[in-house]
Amino acid sequence: MCQLLGMNCNTPTDIVFSFEGFRRRGGLTDEHADGWGIAFFEDDGCRVFLDYLPSATSPVAELVRNYPIKSRNVIAHIRKATQGKVSLANTHPFRRELWGQDWLFAHNGNLSLPESFACTQGCRFQRVGTTDSEQAFCWLLNQLAARFARAPELAELTDAVRELTAELAGHGTFNFLLSNGKALFAHCATNLYYIVRKAPFNTAHLSDADVTVDFSQVTTPNDRVAVIATQPLTDNEQWTRMGAGELLVFTEGRLAS
Amino acid sequence: MCQLLGMNCNTPTDIVFSFEGFRRRGGLTDEHADGWGIAFFEDDGCRVFLDYLPSATSPVAELVRNYPIKSRNVIAHIRKATQGKVSLANTHPFRRELWGQDWLFAHNGNLSLPESFACTQGCRFQRVGTTDSEQAFCWLLNQLAARFARAPELAELTDAVRELTAELAGHGTFNFLLSNGKALFAHCATNLYYIVRKAPFNTAHLSDADVTVDFSQVTTPNDRVAVIATQPLTDNEQWTRMGAGELLVFTEGRLAS
Repeated sequence: MCQLLGMNCNTPTDIVFSFEGFRRRGGLTDEHADGWGIAFFEDDGCRVFLDYLPSATSPVAELVRNYPIKSRNVIAHIRKATQGKVSLANTHPFRRELWGQDWLFAHNGNLSLPESFACTQGCRFQRVGTTDSEQAFCWLLNQLAARFARAPELAELTDAVRELTAELAGHGTFNFLLSNGKALFAHCATNLYYIVRKAPFNTAHLSDADVTVDFSQVTTPNDRVAVIATQPLTDNEQWTRMGAGELLVFTEGRLAS
Repeated sequence: MCQLLGMNCNTPTDIVFSFEGFRRRGGLTDEHADGWGIAFFEDDGCRVFLDYLPSATSPVAELVRNYPIKSRNVIAHIRKATQGKVSLANTHPFRRELWGQDWLFAHNGNLSLPESFACTQGCRFQRVGTTDSEQAFCWLLNQLAARFARAPELAELTDAVRELTAELAGHGTFNFLLSNGKALFAHCATNLYYIVRKAPFNTAHLSDADVTVDFSQVTTPNDRVAVIATQPLTDNEQWTRMGAGELLVFTEGRLAS
């Protein structure tokens, strides 16, 4: 299994604090040492940093730690391989373009997808690597592309994602984070927690390192930041555990549905 | 205008030496300071590092310089903006998946593409940013996808790329590098040079910095490395200038056509 980290905000925010705890689970405080990745949306663009070295020791992780990229949507993933070898092609988050938007996806769990979900010749989105995760992502995008010629409104998009997720989730464990840079979709099968930080901001302390931040010093009163993770990242805040089969959508740092 | 750098090898090779000279043209020895990017294929996967800071001072460039990623196909680009603002969405190399392969593209020049090259509703590949470059890349991939349901043999692919390139090149200046991780296509409109390094290897000295490398110390006799750049990167080697309208294809560190 793997671990997921997501962030959705109403103002560009750096994820350095959360990432500091999260990255330690990749080989230091936990066993997810088969590569990792983090993707940042910045305006319409996005950049993805990947490495097959453990996030606790990766030079790329060191860069992300020291270069506070401000983003309104972030998805990160540390991998413990279940299907597919340790390689760049199998490293999450996966990325595709649909409707002139970048889409990012990361998965925690294990799927046994029937042949009907495979997409080979003639399919628009095909996996590059060999994971069940990338196959599920491609199938989902192929279905969305078939339903909508252009990007639909969020409510319509959410209905479609929810319906397609239910189909996939019947074939295994399917915790995931998905974003098009505007909305962040979070689906829980077994483990996913979230917190929405807003004014009045308080001090938070990481679970995985003795690091504390006083958010009131680095925010403005209107900031809203939603953080979603496989396991709570702090030990002095109240995280909400998502229910099995629950799909939540975050926009502008708040729950949209 | 911008500058391009490409590398195609028969064995995974790091590009640290060439990149050291190239990055200095992004704000230090030359004026291409509107962002930069570099993409590495590693086995079937690829990773792209982007920054809108000048490559001479970017923390991401510093990482690339200190983390010798070994790759058989690399494309790098430093930007002097002509069309489209300085932003991540407008930063080359651009990336898309076709036939279950990652494709990377970087462009030096300026195109004025008629409406018929635009791709909006219903098109498979659409640009995320606002550049002529990404539009040309998407049009090229849309045409390839329409012609071939699966990846064709290299000769057939090259014919198609050559034909489509000619169509695009009629609308402006179109120097580009394109790769699917196996072949590296290089098209010259105005400025593009290449060199193929093979045994017996010699010493090379950068044009943009007083840095020398003795390739015989870091290679094996069977290594072959093709390097393609807008301007020669070394001042003591013989680079071949490509002709206007010439499309070359490199595979395994040698000219394939």
